[in-house]
Amino acid sequence: MNSKKVPEGTITRLFIYLRELTELARLNIRTISSAELGERTNLSDAQVRKDLGYFGQFGTSGSGYQTEELKNALEKILGKDKTWNVAIVGVGHLGSALLTYPGFKERGLNIVAAFDADARKIGKQAKEVTVQSIDELPGTISDKKIVIGVIAVPAKQAQEVADKLVKAKVECILNFAPTALTVPEQVKVKDVDLSRELETLSYFLANKERTRQLIDQQTS
Amino acid sequence: MNSKKVPEGTITRLFIYLRELTELARLNIRTISSAELGERTNLSDAQVRKDLGYFGQFGTSGSGYQTEELKNALEKILGKDKTWNVAIVGVGHLGSALLTYPGFKERGLNIVAAFDADARKIGKQAKEVTVQSIDELPGTISDKKIVIGVIAVPAKQAQEVADKLVKAKVECILNFAPTALTVPEQVKVKDVDLSRELETLSYFLANKERTRQLIDQQTS
Repeated sequence: MNSKKVPEGTITRLFIYLRELTELARLNIRTISSAELGERTNLSDAQVRKDLGYFGQFGTSGSGYQTEELKNALEKILGKDKTWNVAIVGVGHLGSALLTYPGFKERGLNIVAAFDADARKIGKQAKEVTVQSIDELPGTISDKKIVIGVIAVPAKQAQEVADKLVKAKVECILNFAPTALTVPEQVKVKDVDLSRELETLSYFLANKERTRQLIDQQTS
Repeated sequence: MNSKKVPEGTITRLFIYLRELTELARLNIRTISSAELGERTNLSDAQVRKDLGYFGQFGTSGSGYQTEELKNALEKILGKDKTWNVAIVGVGHLGSALLTYPGFKERGLNIVAAFDADARKIGKQAKEVTVQSIDELPGTISDKKIVIGVIAVPAKQAQEVADKLVKAKVECILNFAPTALTVPEQVKVKDVDLSRELETLSYFLANKERTRQLIDQQTS
């Protein structure tokens, strides 16, 4: 393994290559060139080779990559051969939606605990977990070997929850609260900002309106 | 306005420039060069000029852009000077979370209606809207001039809801259901895939574990 820092974009693309390779393996296609893999994923030949180059030598010049071999290597690199335990903090509407969201399990992320500060929610069954008091967070994180904490509380409580998760030694935080968290360098924070998804909609609508006005002017 | 198709990446970056310009205007900084704007947004000089170039001539060579003028132009281009009406379809956990999510209003998107097929939910008050029967969707979309439909129903009902929204003449669909929708070309669909956000976490964890093993080997 190359010790260079791997760009986040490369990681995202490795998942795209992996999906393609899984499909190719299913179709019994044994080898593929970087150019073909690029074509199937709308990326350049050079991009494919550069991305894979961070992790060593895969194909042989001329004959391309062995589909199955590259697929297995990527699964290992991307941690798809393992599962990780997850805790959700905050069992409001969003936390409840996340508890029933199938995408976690599909990605090898098992939700094994849920916490809330509201006494009325504690003890309730949410899918396969029972909501626990936030006071039990440190013990449960340690006992259940939880490495990912999901923050689904309002913005003003998010930092306090992050501090608790860091102290309990989670390795990643997935933050749904619309606020920036301060955590030590070794903890990875992934912010999920739904607003960004909404932003481009207003452009699309404004642009459509402008086009319509232009057409009206031309035809009137 | 240039009639070339503007790449989605450009639109995303225009929002980033706009945030920066809004901050500069607040600080009474009157002019800024493309190089400075690039530096503040971690983008190249050339990228800034290329992105803005889609929409006409803004700065003057040598003296840069007028902060306030460029800010106003971008607000107009991005439709930030307008508001749009939104309906949420599906008032389960996710739909309820979206109804109380402040990000919509901040982006000029006003949630003015919510629909559900479940009789027990109809008539309930959710923030400023009353949940209506899905049968009332066509009339309400038209009466309230709703242009964005948000799909927050399970995957297997998503296409049926999309068809209803298209028939009721919304212009955009924001799809939270983990399924691909088929709609006519003139309707814009934006899929929000939470799974993608989760994907990179497993790589981070696997990579951390590998590093730890490497250190253990070297020190033992």
